[in-house]
Amino acid sequence: MHSPDQVIVYRDQVRYTYRGLRERVGRLASLLQELGVQFGDTVAMMDWDSHRYLESFYGVPMMGAVLQTVNVRLSPDQILYTLNHARPKVLLVNSDFAPILNEIRGRLDSVHRIVWISDDGVQAPSDTAGDYEVLMANSDPNFTFEDFDENTVATTFYTTGTTGLPKGVFFTHRQLVLHTLVTMAAISSPASGQRFHTGDVYMPLTPMFHVHAWGMPYVALQMGVKQVYPGRYIPDALVRSIQKERVTFSHCVPTVLQMVLNAAAAGSVDLRGWKVVIGGSALSEALAGKAVSQGIDIFAGYGMSETCPILTLAQIRPRHDGLREAEELSLRCRAGAPVPLVALRTVDDSFKDVTSGGEIVVRAPWLTQGYAGNESASEALWQGGYLHTADIGALTGGYLKITDRIKDVIKTGGEWVSSLEVEDLLSRHDSVSEVAVIGVPDTQWGERPVALIVPRTAGVLNESELRDFLMNFVVQGLISRYAIPSKFQIVDALDKTSVGKLDKKILRTRFAS
Amino acid sequence: MHSPDQVIVYRDQVRYTYRGLRERVGRLASLLQELGVQFGDTVAMMDWDSHRYLESFYGVPMMGAVLQTVNVRLSPDQILYTLNHARPKVLLVNSDFAPILNEIRGRLDSVHRIVWISDDGVQAPSDTAGDYEVLMANSDPNFTFEDFDENTVATTFYTTGTTGLPKGVFFTHRQLVLHTLVTMAAISSPASGQRFHTGDVYMPLTPMFHVHAWGMPYVALQMGVKQVYPGRYIPDALVRSIQKERVTFSHCVPTVLQMVLNAAAAGSVDLRGWKVVIGGSALSEALAGKAVSQGIDIFAGYGMSETCPILTLAQIRPRHDGLREAEELSLRCRAGAPVPLVALRTVDDSFKDVTSGGEIVVRAPWLTQGYAGNESASEALWQGGYLHTADIGALTGGYLKITDRIKDVIKTGGEWVSSLEVEDLLSRHDSVSEVAVIGVPDTQWGERPVALIVPRTAGVLNESELRDFLMNFVVQGLISRYAIPSKFQIVDALDKTSVGKLDKKILRTRFAS
Repeated sequence: MHSPDQVIVYRDQVRYTYRGLRERVGRLASLLQELGVQFGDTVAMMDWDSHRYLESFYGVPMMGAVLQTVNVRLSPDQILYTLNHARPKVLLVNSDFAPILNEIRGRLDSVHRIVWISDDGVQAPSDTAGDYEVLMANSDPNFTFEDFDENTVATTFYTTGTTGLPKGVFFTHRQLVLHTLVTMAAISSPASGQRFHTGDVYMPLTPMFHVHAWGMPYVALQMGVKQVYPGRYIPDALVRSIQKERVTFSHCVPTVLQMVLNAAAAGSVDLRGWKVVIGGSALSEALAGKAVSQGIDIFAGYGMSETCPILTLAQIRPRHDGLREAEELSLRCRAGAPVPLVALRTVDDSFKDVTSGGEIVVRAPWLTQGYAGNESASEALWQGGYLHTADIGALTGGYLKITDRIKDVIKTGGEWVSSLEVEDLLSRHDSVSEVAVIGVPDTQWGERPVALIVPRTAGVLNESELRDFLMNFVVQGLISRYAIPSKFQIVDALDKTSVGKLDKKILRTRFAS
Repeated sequence: MHSPDQVIVYRDQVRYTYRGLRERVGRLASLLQELGVQFGDTVAMMDWDSHRYLESFYGVPMMGAVLQTVNVRLSPDQILYTLNHARPKVLLVNSDFAPILNEIRGRLDSVHRIVWISDDGVQAPSDTAGDYEVLMANSDPNFTFEDFDENTVATTFYTTGTTGLPKGVFFTHRQLVLHTLVTMAAISSPASGQRFHTGDVYMPLTPMFHVHAWGMPYVALQMGVKQVYPGRYIPDALVRSIQKERVTFSHCVPTVLQMVLNAAAAGSVDLRGWKVVIGGSALSEALAGKAVSQGIDIFAGYGMSETCPILTLAQIRPRHDGLREAEELSLRCRAGAPVPLVALRTVDDSFKDVTSGGEIVVRAPWLTQGYAGNESASEALWQGGYLHTADIGALTGGYLKITDRIKDVIKTGGEWVSSLEVEDLLSRHDSVSEVAVIGVPDTQWGERPVALIVPRTAGVLNESELRDFLMNFVVQGLISRYAIPSKFQIVDALDKTSVGKLDKKILRTRFAS
């Protein structure tokens, strides 16, 4: 074991060494085995970013079980759907999610045992297996981890990227190891700047349920660096942790960075020397410029849940020396250059390479092999032997730039909103004749949904009535609160394509600028 | 393709871009196909370190053929043996090796076609397929490289590490890719120092036939750095190249470093900022100290032909901050810390872990799976499911230190000499009753062989007679010139073990200090 004395920190509450992590990973496996988990079973995790989550990153896959990282930002009904689809035997759940758990518990098909997690001393309900820490203390640290096939599935996660129901992606041990090695090689190799190295202090600011916090905790452990897990993202607390633990490397969506910058400004905290990879949504030059001017080494990356996720990183290479500041800023905001082993093309409808305006399709050994139990969507994803990102891009000078999106979805604060789903719900309102939901750029959230509505009778509809109407579905757990459009605009007619479908491309041009 | 405009340099003679390399890799594959090479066939390469060698590193394996990197330092008979064992269909040979080729040509079993390489305009003999450059110019750069199984063998190389006949190790595409990724991750990730990064200029000083120059050219290409290939190692020319091309990263055995330091001193060349990984033989603190005092960032690595080769690297980690100079120097000279995915143990005879004095055994996904066509040696190599290095070591603070060697071999100037082989030849001399050949430390060569001889009749033998006797075998191509002992010492008796074998351990203690 390397770096046995290196430290892992959870908020102000826990501080232990890599040696301690290894011991607790053994305890976790023993505990899960005791609860009936066997090779091939699934274990679901619902927690904030914590040392416990890190323990599950290793303990569950290492015993040959599958870790389901539950997206706690989904609506209760969507969470229920993902749990009943992945069929975990055991669920580890933070007491903060008790309201969700209570709502769905009676409808959970597969969960036999629940392990209770609490930071605040909330006692484990009697119908659970007990408290995580109590159970861990009573478990054997000397679990024997056997060798098994590298193509065994290690983790699964549900993405709401495209339409309707969440879809399960899954990754094998082989894929996680390759993704870890390639990411470590790519992210540490620059001469200086835009790099993560063995002298850094790491704190994720992408939820650990989101494709393993972009795989970075696995990289951090290989690096042997100090790791800081922040719990729930509360801007003031994040800034305090960054300052107190001297965090030097993080990654997040633009919205979270904006939150942190605001909190740092309010508290007069100096973030100089902090390095941040931005992904999930486009990094605007305005935000990047603001960060750079505060001494933050910011750069973009690109990937998606289906791709484990890292495909490209916008690191500045030695050949870029002498770039003007504005050019360098523009480079930092591109999707970046493919990391090793990623074959990336931009192709037209007939799969011919085009220099710009083509769909980005990729091959790499760590891409999800399909959506769990959804053959048609899997086939569409891998049409022609390449994974289809549904993003439109251009490759110039080896650097990818995303220019448009094929999928009819909106990304707000790093989370996907299906416009089709919101359209479906709004169309149930008696006064709505036709509706289109589009994403419009938003400085805080990246994008926000806007509803364009053709009323049955002119002048009858008003915004607050529609908002209340959708709120019912939020309360019912069908959609997330952030899916409610920021604006409801009455229009005379909606543009259609030649086959009569909504022409979102034109609608976006007309209404989203 | 990344870094298409980055430069590859060969001596003062050739300078082309990565784009050019890619094109020539296509041409080489077309050329070899034209010469009858098919999937699974072997192609042998006999050249100095060159851009052509780099082309073969990619072109041959990428077409599904196996690249044999011929150890040109072996005796002609040994070279012949390795060629007839690996059975290449095509041999690429530098005109500098024409004397060897002429000696063995009539006895080559498998070689159908020979491609002639010359830097000096030596015309291709009429019984060859022709000159490399002429053939390349006439070949199609657009070769279609098909996908195939990752476990396809990519390269083979013969090691003379242990006894008698050279043994063939082999590596698959999967192994080369994993070794490349792990090496890139490990060697680029330090905060500062002891690292190879995208801003470096790379020049190998370990022959490319030696397990792919320790795999570093594959890493260099992934890094996208400028690469400088020095041809034959002529100390003055090496120093000039380092200076002219601003080389910042190399790797070599101690003997080569010593040569370069001497040449640099003679030419008053400043080597500050040069980073060098030392392997192949132990790095002495004297040599390391000399290098450090000249501003060279020197550190050791450990591995062997059987291990692809990298297992450990002696990089200084942030936790070592504040070490005294002597302690830091000592760390630089250790074998170092295992790179990712290497499971390394030091075990006693019953395979129990011991903290010191145990044999170093390893697992990693890039170790040779055996010796080609030699089942018993392969089984011995992998006894107990771990590869046996036959080195004795101790792991302290996560850093390996080699303390002794089990194998009865001598390593001189980075090359193995089989003491058994030299003993066998010397014992053929009429006046020799008993003989033991042991390695003694040598500041220039790491080790040199010394012969301990019990004569049949006291006082009859003399050193120059024995030297001449062995020289006959060098001329016959049976052993290399460097295998001739530096010293022939007459002794009364040789220490034996309980079972009557030579006790080399005691002999080394008595005569090698």
